[in-house]
Amino acid sequence: MSENQPEPHGEIVKAEIITIGDEILRGEIVDSNKALLSERLLNIHVDSRFHTSVLDDRVDMSDAIRRAMSRCDVVLLSGGLGPTRDDITTEVVADCFDRKLVLDEVALETIRSFFAQLSREMSENNAKQAYFPEGAEILPNPIGTAPGFMLEKSGSLLFAMPGVPRELELMLDQQVLPRISARFGVGGVVRARLLRTFGLGESSLDDELQNIARRNEEDAGSAGDASNAVRVELGFRTTFPDNFLRPVVRSGSREQADTHLDAICREIRDLLGPLVYGEEDQTMAAVVGSLLREHRMQIATAESCTGGLIAERITDEAGSSDYFAGGVVSYSNESKSALLGVPADLIEQYGAVSEPVARAMAEGACERFDSQLGVATTGISGPGGGSDQKPVGLVFVALAREGRATHVENFVFPLDRSRHRSLTAQVALDWVRRSLLEVELVGPSLLRRRGGAAPPAAAFPVKEVRSD
Amino acid sequence: MSENQPEPHGEIVKAEIITIGDEILRGEIVDSNKALLSERLLNIHVDSRFHTSVLDDRVDMSDAIRRAMSRCDVVLLSGGLGPTRDDITTEVVADCFDRKLVLDEVALETIRSFFAQLSREMSENNAKQAYFPEGAEILPNPIGTAPGFMLEKSGSLLFAMPGVPRELELMLDQQVLPRISARFGVGGVVRARLLRTFGLGESSLDDELQNIARRNEEDAGSAGDASNAVRVELGFRTTFPDNFLRPVVRSGSREQADTHLDAICREIRDLLGPLVYGEEDQTMAAVVGSLLREHRMQIATAESCTGGLIAERITDEAGSSDYFAGGVVSYSNESKSALLGVPADLIEQYGAVSEPVARAMAEGACERFDSQLGVATTGISGPGGGSDQKPVGLVFVALAREGRATHVENFVFPLDRSRHRSLTAQVALDWVRRSLLEVELVGPSLLRRRGGAAPPAAAFPVKEVRSD
Repeated sequence: MSENQPEPHGEIVKAEIITIGDEILRGEIVDSNKALLSERLLNIHVDSRFHTSVLDDRVDMSDAIRRAMSRCDVVLLSGGLGPTRDDITTEVVADCFDRKLVLDEVALETIRSFFAQLSREMSENNAKQAYFPEGAEILPNPIGTAPGFMLEKSGSLLFAMPGVPRELELMLDQQVLPRISARFGVGGVVRARLLRTFGLGESSLDDELQNIARRNEEDAGSAGDASNAVRVELGFRTTFPDNFLRPVVRSGSREQADTHLDAICREIRDLLGPLVYGEEDQTMAAVVGSLLREHRMQIATAESCTGGLIAERITDEAGSSDYFAGGVVSYSNESKSALLGVPADLIEQYGAVSEPVARAMAEGACERFDSQLGVATTGISGPGGGSDQKPVGLVFVALAREGRATHVENFVFPLDRSRHRSLTAQVALDWVRRSLLEVELVGPSLLRRRGGAAPPAAAFPVKEVRSD
Repeated sequence: MSENQPEPHGEIVKAEIITIGDEILRGEIVDSNKALLSERLLNIHVDSRFHTSVLDDRVDMSDAIRRAMSRCDVVLLSGGLGPTRDDITTEVVADCFDRKLVLDEVALETIRSFFAQLSREMSENNAKQAYFPEGAEILPNPIGTAPGFMLEKSGSLLFAMPGVPRELELMLDQQVLPRISARFGVGGVVRARLLRTFGLGESSLDDELQNIARRNEEDAGSAGDASNAVRVELGFRTTFPDNFLRPVVRSGSREQADTHLDAICREIRDLLGPLVYGEEDQTMAAVVGSLLREHRMQIATAESCTGGLIAERITDEAGSSDYFAGGVVSYSNESKSALLGVPADLIEQYGAVSEPVARAMAEGACERFDSQLGVATTGISGPGGGSDQKPVGLVFVALAREGRATHVENFVFPLDRSRHRSLTAQVALDWVRRSLLEVELVGPSLLRRRGGAAPPAAAFPVKEVRSD
């Protein structure tokens, strides 16, 4: 195999991702770069086969790099390109490739002007970042001081990139992925779409969805010869309180892949109806915002147990002042009466956590903020405050809408405080969405994972560790 | 080296962590288990040397396990213990250790009763989880169906654990760490503490803190012989908008380590004063809550640009109804007047984003909620809505306190919407803390990282990818 004859190791293009840094191995950070890199590689039909992290250690790095180059077509390195003594990635790579380090004048000038722009002196250390292994192709870093570089050996490509996520992401998209595609482009494409659902139970739907995936695959397989085969996979993940479905289609052409992807998404939507609330990065609050804007309606919130979370989610969207009138966080009984006009005797008679009070809060919010819609929550998120009649976990959600009867329901969510609040807020937002879509207001069937254990707490906004 | 003679590979106990699962390599999840495992290992003086992730693939898993056993004293496997066909960890480990799989009746019974408890049938697949490599020590999993196990070979220990984070964590603490300590206990201990700071600039403090670390290390070094040496490291990480410091002390005895840790923490606190707001898992809102409870005072919020975020943070603490009177999210001018009593002509004359309006909002919140303290925010979080005189990023924060003059300041934070809101909310909470501590109310010096780039968006609540 010559240095100039590309020959991928087998039909599938295999990648290894190596991240470098003591802080990763000490567990001080969760290294999200690997997931980012793998996800993007998959989009261009490159399979990540190994994730490896090593210390800022010459021997360990060298071993990892040599092994990766021997078993994969693409090796992505991240980290260790900084100006400090610990940052030895460039040296070690040069060593592994038997190359000298040479100064790149253009890179040096770029680093110098980067500092000038910030009205800062460039330190001696930063000059180090302008040295590269001889023969390397330099990858510009327009938003940081550390350029990356690419080297090739025996048909495999190595890319060294900075560890700072936003610099890494930009360099990946602008410099790295196009080079990989150009080198290993196999004509096939991968298309995927994230369907965001709320309120469905995982286990009851799993089988049905598997059938969809299988049927799609069979249809595709029987439609043409093997080289034209379409592969469909249906990914599933939970980001409390939502469940995300992610159909992935691999096919010979973008058109074919898109056609299949559209078809499977349509099938899933037909099956699940309004349980699918959005796609890709559309949050529930963003979907609710679009619908409110479309209907030229305003909403107000009256929150007890959710403590401002619903308002916070709504206003996290840019431009939400178009449709968000305002909200009250009425933690005390007095404030429920004074700010929302809930009659004091109603609270005395039924208690603050009750259907009549939830109803009065939602209607009071509409009135006080002069809005067409009002949502209210009152409940016991715990861990304390429960009683026999009103256990921890009990919550009332109310939706008031101009010209309609106010809808109130109660739920008992056996969840910790934080998840109780999160789920309650999502139910309230989902009801606004359902009301504007003119579909039934339903509560969530409690999300359960295969094996019966409750889903783990959502540690991340979008990605989460799977159940096993 | 015999199977029964422990002999760690060198003085330092080295660990490799291997996580298994296609979804990790597809980038569908950010695998936080590795950071958790490494952090806990470090606490018992075990250094993680390698992180590796592989597909649910027999050959890749086997290679990774064999290599790890040959180069490390402790190998932690996570994932692939589930009931499905993809879950082959147990088989592959048995193969690597040349052991047969044998049924463990006790484990089978435990799994059966786990399902009985949930009133569910145990499926055939789950019976698979009761098979283990011959001679393995079984590690119970009280909150899931997959027990773990331990095997030993040539002085190295392998632990197989489930991938579900909460099951993993419990098994790690109860079963795995004690066994590693018992086996490799080297007398030395590691003690660490997290100091949470808000409002300090990283670069200006970095040198000073490094001096503290160096001096401590020298003092410790000169105090005794080498075997008695104390190693001090000062970790640093940013979790927007806070900066966390983490002194780590390794020493021969727990007493010695604690003494040194106390001393270094005292030194840091002397240097930084009220910039250190809490330790370990104490959030700003938790600290504010404790102070309010101590002072028997109530607080109310009046939020415009933060949209409920301050109230949400306060009420995320259990028991916050003791000191949180309530809040208003006054997004519209009308609601500022109607619910907070801000004079309409004040808004007309100065605009909603102005010092007089911020002041009136804070004072109005105190009055309407009958509280001793009131905080208010009004600003332009963007991306739209700015003007020449009032640019995007401008925000007024006000703190009203009974019997004192209301404090109002304005800032321009050049941050995206989400971080603008987050920083503003933290300033407001910090002012409450500072007021109750009777120290000066100051704003944050804009957090900058070494190299001058802005800190990356906080993707995780506690841990973040470092700058490079």
